[in-house]
Amino acid sequence: MSGPSNTDVALTEERTSPPVIVVDAMGGDNAPAEIVRGAVIATREFGLRVVLVGRRTEIARILAEEEALREIPVVHAEDELAMHEGALASWRRPRSSAAVACRLIRRGDADALVSAGTTGGIVATSTVRLRTQPGVLRPALAVPLPTGDVPTIMVDAGANADAKPEMLVQFAHLGCAYVQTAYGVHTPRVGVLTIGSEPGKGNKLVRKAGELLTAAAEGERPMEFLGNIEGHDLLTRKVDVVVTDGHTGNVTLKTVEGTASFALDAVRGALTTNPLARAGTLFQRKPLRELRESLNSETYGGAALLGLNGTVVLAHGSSHAKGVARACRLAHDLAGGHITEQIRRRVHTRSTHWLHRLAQSEER
Amino acid sequence: MSGPSNTDVALTEERTSPPVIVVDAMGGDNAPAEIVRGAVIATREFGLRVVLVGRRTEIARILAEEEALREIPVVHAEDELAMHEGALASWRRPRSSAAVACRLIRRGDADALVSAGTTGGIVATSTVRLRTQPGVLRPALAVPLPTGDVPTIMVDAGANADAKPEMLVQFAHLGCAYVQTAYGVHTPRVGVLTIGSEPGKGNKLVRKAGELLTAAAEGERPMEFLGNIEGHDLLTRKVDVVVTDGHTGNVTLKTVEGTASFALDAVRGALTTNPLARAGTLFQRKPLRELRESLNSETYGGAALLGLNGTVVLAHGSSHAKGVARACRLAHDLAGGHITEQIRRRVHTRSTHWLHRLAQSEER
Repeated sequence: MSGPSNTDVALTEERTSPPVIVVDAMGGDNAPAEIVRGAVIATREFGLRVVLVGRRTEIARILAEEEALREIPVVHAEDELAMHEGALASWRRPRSSAAVACRLIRRGDADALVSAGTTGGIVATSTVRLRTQPGVLRPALAVPLPTGDVPTIMVDAGANADAKPEMLVQFAHLGCAYVQTAYGVHTPRVGVLTIGSEPGKGNKLVRKAGELLTAAAEGERPMEFLGNIEGHDLLTRKVDVVVTDGHTGNVTLKTVEGTASFALDAVRGALTTNPLARAGTLFQRKPLRELRESLNSETYGGAALLGLNGTVVLAHGSSHAKGVARACRLAHDLAGGHITEQIRRRVHTRSTHWLHRLAQSEER
Repeated sequence: MSGPSNTDVALTEERTSPPVIVVDAMGGDNAPAEIVRGAVIATREFGLRVVLVGRRTEIARILAEEEALREIPVVHAEDELAMHEGALASWRRPRSSAAVACRLIRRGDADALVSAGTTGGIVATSTVRLRTQPGVLRPALAVPLPTGDVPTIMVDAGANADAKPEMLVQFAHLGCAYVQTAYGVHTPRVGVLTIGSEPGKGNKLVRKAGELLTAAAEGERPMEFLGNIEGHDLLTRKVDVVVTDGHTGNVTLKTVEGTASFALDAVRGALTTNPLARAGTLFQRKPLRELRESLNSETYGGAALLGLNGTVVLAHGSSHAKGVARACRLAHDLAGGHITEQIRRRVHTRSTHWLHRLAQSEER
């Protein structure tokens, strides 16, 4: 029942270019079974290099069922973050699977963390253990909106409930680095989410951020700032990066998910109101199922926590194996495209140094 | 071509209980034709007492087409607010149709204003001319979310981009007065829109407002405070009143509209991917059209600006006749149910006096 003895050895091998993704086997509603199965899919179908972290015997049992014991190395971690464990978890549980995973990244044995654990706990743990990149004010969550092949990215989707204008400027840079790395967009179009499309509309935070972003867009790093965008522009591909504070971003993201799900349920209701309409659904089940799939946030691999020394992807808490595998692929794309390097270059310019000083002076 | 001479006389008649709705004929994308036709529907189909304000000759011509010249009185106003005219419009244009309409309400000749004009202009004009009710910190926009027969009301949907915790408490009272008046809900359930459902989650504004609302719910006015609600709870009828700042409220509302429309377009696409699926739509067109209608914000009559000395309903800018008529019915229900009286009773209690002082002292 115990795991294979050669697992730790694999980690110290000379690493070539493909990044190593460390997967938190203990996080999420369906952990560890679905998480481990997701890692197997990531390895076999996507050809990724994956390491699992968590309770070795449990993981090994599931790997054995999948006949994948020799394919995926396992690193033991005796503890785990409980669901609903928030910001303090990172201090309380130094031996949690998430903490051990971060240690692997810090040691240089891995490049990216994938976890379906509680957002608060994973954000806190990885921020404490990986630390923010030099010059980055705050890490932020970047989430793809379900707009199709090249999604629009929303930053911040909930890591910072209270934000300053200077932070919104950095969120724009983080989002640009994301779409450049993941989708190869050279000069990303950026918009600030607010009331009304004219400049000068919105709350104080957005108005000030708009001024700073207009200046930032004229700087050295490629970015096209399109000004204000409204709630109904989120899914119309008007911009590549939507910048907002974590409060508005989180509420908006969940509103998109809730409304899409509500509308599709209502469609199902409408299509079965009478026998003739119901008969029509016979050949529509597949396209409707595919549509629901495409509007599902799991499809896009999850949220990326940007601005840390290492790539962190948070899969949906209710992720099944496929969702976990997609999160691994996103982590692979971001780490393989050297997103931290991209962020370093964007944030480490003279134009952002004064932003940093400004924000720090205000905090005093 | 000139209007009937007896129009002004109708206004000075002894008014009995049914409220008089004054409709701004010049506001909106489809003004004046669709607005005037909406007033005709409101009069004939809903039996409401309606007055039209705007350029008399234009209005009379449309009324003549509808053979309604003798049914609806017209008050002349030579000027109008241009679309995109903002907060200063109210000062610049004292003879605009909206300003003249407010004057009728102040004089006691009418009880409610309905306009499809620009939100900024109408909010500014009516706030300046009708003034806020005693004790009310700021008027706020209340908008029904498309949740079915008894909608959930969101306050504030965009009148105040920057809000204070004390204002959010009053928004809750305004929303409660709305659902009590319009839907007869005796003890409205109230939630604050934020990240995460546990108390203590969210930004500073929401955390402080949550504390104040917990205290307010124990006061004299009936209200059940359910704490935090998230974006995906907006359409699930979890609460009767969603409280939020105008920035988050406006972004969220437009996100609901944009996502519903996006999802229904995607459904249409999915249902016609192949000939067999397309054949199925033959008997589904009607239920799908009805569904789209039920998710359309026009269906619910528009946004109510609460907290002024008089009822103000903002119909959607793109409203057609039916939408205008529904806005008239909403104005009738609110004014007929004496919502300003309800608000006065809720806001004019000892518990809110200190809120008022607190907010004012912070402004100094």
